[in-house]
Amino acid sequence: MADTIVAEAAAEEQKVRVDLGARSYDIKIGRGVIANAGAEIASVLPGARVAVVSDQTVAGLHLDAFTDSLTEAGIDHTVLTVPAGESTKCFREFERLCDEVLDARLERGDAVVALGGGVVGDLTGFVASAVRRGMAFVQVPTTLLAQVDSSVGGKTGINARHGKNLIGAFYQPALVLADTAVLDTLPLRDFRAGYAEVAKYGLLGDAEFFSWLEANWKAVFAGGAERDEAVARSCQAKADIVAADEFEAGRRALLNLGHTFGHALEAAVSYETQRLVHGEGVSIGMMLAHEFSERLGLVGEDTVSRVHKHLTDVGLPVRIQEIPGQLPTAETFMDIIAQDKKVSRGALTFILTRGIGEAFVEKGVDPVQVSDFLKEKLQA
Amino acid sequence: MADTIVAEAAAEEQKVRVDLGARSYDIKIGRGVIANAGAEIASVLPGARVAVVSDQTVAGLHLDAFTDSLTEAGIDHTVLTVPAGESTKCFREFERLCDEVLDARLERGDAVVALGGGVVGDLTGFVASAVRRGMAFVQVPTTLLAQVDSSVGGKTGINARHGKNLIGAFYQPALVLADTAVLDTLPLRDFRAGYAEVAKYGLLGDAEFFSWLEANWKAVFAGGAERDEAVARSCQAKADIVAADEFEAGRRALLNLGHTFGHALEAAVSYETQRLVHGEGVSIGMMLAHEFSERLGLVGEDTVSRVHKHLTDVGLPVRIQEIPGQLPTAETFMDIIAQDKKVSRGALTFILTRGIGEAFVEKGVDPVQVSDFLKEKLQA
Repeated sequence: MADTIVAEAAAEEQKVRVDLGARSYDIKIGRGVIANAGAEIASVLPGARVAVVSDQTVAGLHLDAFTDSLTEAGIDHTVLTVPAGESTKCFREFERLCDEVLDARLERGDAVVALGGGVVGDLTGFVASAVRRGMAFVQVPTTLLAQVDSSVGGKTGINARHGKNLIGAFYQPALVLADTAVLDTLPLRDFRAGYAEVAKYGLLGDAEFFSWLEANWKAVFAGGAERDEAVARSCQAKADIVAADEFEAGRRALLNLGHTFGHALEAAVSYETQRLVHGEGVSIGMMLAHEFSERLGLVGEDTVSRVHKHLTDVGLPVRIQEIPGQLPTAETFMDIIAQDKKVSRGALTFILTRGIGEAFVEKGVDPVQVSDFLKEKLQA
Repeated sequence: MADTIVAEAAAEEQKVRVDLGARSYDIKIGRGVIANAGAEIASVLPGARVAVVSDQTVAGLHLDAFTDSLTEAGIDHTVLTVPAGESTKCFREFERLCDEVLDARLERGDAVVALGGGVVGDLTGFVASAVRRGMAFVQVPTTLLAQVDSSVGGKTGINARHGKNLIGAFYQPALVLADTAVLDTLPLRDFRAGYAEVAKYGLLGDAEFFSWLEANWKAVFAGGAERDEAVARSCQAKADIVAADEFEAGRRALLNLGHTFGHALEAAVSYETQRLVHGEGVSIGMMLAHEFSERLGLVGEDTVSRVHKHLTDVGLPVRIQEIPGQLPTAETFMDIIAQDKKVSRGALTFILTRGIGEAFVEKGVDPVQVSDFLKEKLQA
């Protein structure tokens, strides 16, 4: 039975190469790739021992399958568990995991594996970057958001009291294994939120992919070959951008389409995920970015309507007022935006667009125009 | 008066280029370079604001001169102070400094400056690497050890309960300013300890430099042009090795000549600096590495005697028994060595030598031979 699953996975598996010179690596995508994880890791990191980091939720669902594959491949391993949830991305858990990886007596060539969503991946990646100044690192993302976004590109980190992801490292994994079958266990709300990032790749630079998503999104949600295709194309899009700009000096900022507004919304609700999760913030943020681009005369109403239709079709929020509970004023939003780490020497940087697939980085956005725009949106 | 000092510094300044592609940087060496630090930083990082990290001891001696030069250059700056001493290289201070750099609202292009010895440089470098996933970083080393060793090459980090420097990053500075005049305020014991690393560069790869040191060490200690020359040649030696092997995959391990034994000695005295400081451990460790090489028939007694003479001439310890207080057994030493992070997959790696300037990496050293050797040395 296990053999059959592996054979199926191998037959359907897609591979995306992230081309970063000596730090290049593969993303393997497909249903059931976790069943073959041990062999994949042994192939890339021969002889390495492994510390698997997972959270309590993911561990309950997928840890046994993962550690079974390590055992089958003869890989000596230890399991470290962290609490589920964003608050795990903190200094205390960072310190605890660093100590536990050292407790396990892992050496520099050994590997730290993140089995989980973005929280586990970000925290574990920072730990892998820091212990012995860099252990081998493997990402096994178990959410759609992590598969198409946070596991690709090497951004790792934890939150500080000043904001999210303010402490971390650019640290590339040696391998990413994206098992699209594990997404079957994901709550619909989380799948939708991850899908916002999938749609983002179409909107920022690939009009054809966006059209394909408009035609195929139901199959992506259902879990067929279209899901693998959507994950692979998203990873490829991100890999291309990261390869061109690993340390976010320029073009990589395009990936922040919808994120300046989105982060501000997340901060405004104090990151209460009952009210708003990251992908929902990105969805509303992308809508706002298109509407703000329309306001600046960069894009027509037809484009804005098309974005609106697709995001609402899949069930994503597009208006600030869809966030439940009291919302802050435009002034508070502006303060939050000004503190965002994408601010460069005081000027506001936004990702704007000239059409579907035609996003661009604009570094000289007038704060007054943004403020006026937000005031209207909050009153609308 | 200030102008005269700057002019003198400029006239005598030496420059060593660390060639690491896009991460290349200069080390400026000379008496009084701190007086010109602001202009140097403004030249390399135009427009950057600065957070200066220093410890209480160094701040009392050199902070005013340094911040005056920032003010003269029109650089907006803030000062963050840490306690002096090795225990500052800990998770708690790392978190505190990260938060304080964020408190100061520094952005990604702004700079974090380490003004101090190895502790300040290692901790501050790790903070610079982590805040916003990488701020600009400037080293202003104020000890001989930091000038010739820890400030060059990008190793940053803190200590874990499992050992020293086990958590950190490879993170290169944008500029290093080594003011050899500040070494006049260094206690003789610390100058000597730093000198062990200077001698190491001769012993590991440059017989001519070692001969030069034998002839000129008194002038190096006295503080003339010979001191600048010794610092510059040491930095150049380290820069060459780091350029060839930034992430310590091979050749860089040569820099650990004397360090496997030395680290074990430091750990054996629980890093009590009243008993042993790092450079003293390195001095004894280098002596042991030469004696062990002699034991293996790699090197003659004449070489061992020459090393012994020079290290004792300058006043450095060369025998384990020179460390005051009770010492552990050979078994305990072996346990410590086995836990050292330079262990690779269980085999013992040592830097051995075939003569002055002819050190090499030996990965297959028999633990029994090391243990027997240490037993004799402890009984001698």
